[in-house]
Amino acid sequence: MIAVDWGTSSFRAYRLDESGAIRERRERPRGIAQVPAGGFPQVLAEEMGDWLAGGGETVVLCGMVGSRQGWVEVPYCECPAGAREIAARLQPVELDGAAAFIVPGVCGFDASGVRDVMRGEETQILGALEALPEEAVVCLPGTHSKWVRVQGARILGFSTHFTGEAFAVLKAHSLLGRMIEGGPTDEAAFLAGVARSGEPEGLLHHLFGVRAKALFGELSAAGGGEYLSGLLIGHELRNALAAVRDAPVFLLGAPGLAARYALGLRALGAGARALDAECAVNGMRLLAHARRLVRNTA
Amino acid sequence: MIAVDWGTSSFRAYRLDESGAIRERRERPRGIAQVPAGGFPQVLAEEMGDWLAGGGETVVLCGMVGSRQGWVEVPYCECPAGAREIAARLQPVELDGAAAFIVPGVCGFDASGVRDVMRGEETQILGALEALPEEAVVCLPGTHSKWVRVQGARILGFSTHFTGEAFAVLKAHSLLGRMIEGGPTDEAAFLAGVARSGEPEGLLHHLFGVRAKALFGELSAAGGGEYLSGLLIGHELRNALAAVRDAPVFLLGAPGLAARYALGLRALGAGARALDAECAVNGMRLLAHARRLVRNTA
Repeated sequence: MIAVDWGTSSFRAYRLDESGAIRERRERPRGIAQVPAGGFPQVLAEEMGDWLAGGGETVVLCGMVGSRQGWVEVPYCECPAGAREIAARLQPVELDGAAAFIVPGVCGFDASGVRDVMRGEETQILGALEALPEEAVVCLPGTHSKWVRVQGARILGFSTHFTGEAFAVLKAHSLLGRMIEGGPTDEAAFLAGVARSGEPEGLLHHLFGVRAKALFGELSAAGGGEYLSGLLIGHELRNALAAVRDAPVFLLGAPGLAARYALGLRALGAGARALDAECAVNGMRLLAHARRLVRNTA
Repeated sequence: MIAVDWGTSSFRAYRLDESGAIRERRERPRGIAQVPAGGFPQVLAEEMGDWLAGGGETVVLCGMVGSRQGWVEVPYCECPAGAREIAARLQPVELDGAAAFIVPGVCGFDASGVRDVMRGEETQILGALEALPEEAVVCLPGTHSKWVRVQGARILGFSTHFTGEAFAVLKAHSLLGRMIEGGPTDEAAFLAGVARSGEPEGLLHHLFGVRAKALFGELSAAGGGEYLSGLLIGHELRNALAAVRDAPVFLLGAPGLAARYALGLRALGAGARALDAECAVNGMRLLAHARRLVRNTA
């Protein structure tokens, strides 16, 4: 089978053998934002036409390719959701020479009854299940960080934090961005931001403080971005940990960002174990088996 | 004397008679962001050359004209600061045919020892003193909202919230902005945002919730902006009120924004009295008297 992790900004394709091992992988900066409407089969033909040439392939795709801006909008699967529930809602799509399916996202409600959604992270969680205990919380840092409660191999519920996008937007477009330039990692500045996030008067007051500190030369150009990152991640971590209770926390994300979250968690007295970041492919394999699209050779 | 309230985006000049009454006023969308370096005397000559033609005028200027991006950077006056302390730090500037002075901003530290600054609001506060009791808290909503503790006719301390700029940046540049259009005032949506701000998991989670609600059609295009506004103002109000204790709250700002804050405060069970928004001119008159730049005719 072929597994495709197709997000907003990148395209990752994996060719698996019958045992489920990865035989070949291709990664390209060709996310769905670069694909014109109706252009998805064409991009697949260009990127992996040789894999499809024999015919009869099973292709599973996950990520934003199933969103309103993607190939087709696949309705969300409601929590609680495990491999069985998600596999039942795999959405077939037309692709020459293959049986192709898009993984649905998952939706739920937070403790206050407000909607939340994910697309792509559910497949990563499924792929990481074998490394998780019966009950766990998985933090997936990113543009929109997810905190996912897992129990009995199913996603019970989750909360999204706008942290990564808030950081990008504030750096690029606001007063903070005009005064602060990117730069090398400055662990002390990052941790100062994490510490600040625990002080009174809230995030909106803390954000203005970044500007005031910069005005008085209390933040270097390099350190300012790290302080802002620590401030935002610190707010996310404190709020998310307050909702987690006793379940062990696992981190699943790109190594740099995961290291940043691990540093913040340690500063707050919480531990977190790292999971393999490339587990989406394993999740797609699991879904293909659950839907009986491929023979179970396990 | 002539009083000039010169901010980032607007220029307001007032000609006062010897009794301190406003004889004439001019307002132009010619804020300091539109003035090239060194161009400030030229703009004053163009906007009020006729007022200066007789010579011997006293001109007091307040606002961002005294910032690093303004005419000259005037050092901040430290809290606690009243008319005496601020008047002593009026900064003379060269202007043909006039004795011209720029009002310094005020700086302080929040309860956690982090710097905070204002420029222009201190002059509004001075101008509003006669309407305030011995002890009060004044909220000045805006791009950077100020919550100012006043006691015995002096600014004791203050806290700034990034609310207005966060709203503008999120509306214009983020996913929220792409999905939500401006529109007519929708009081119910605004109040739903204020209510949401009191729920668990913090602002960064609540911000993602705006997107999720919009995805599921739970927010109209018109109501989305109002909900986001209520969410951000609600976070500011809750955090600021927690720091205020028992002092009565006064609102000082443009009528539309002040009405929005008053609505939010009422929803949180707090009252606020409105102050005259055009009190900066009175503050400049007070400073000119305190510095003995004009005869005291009171």
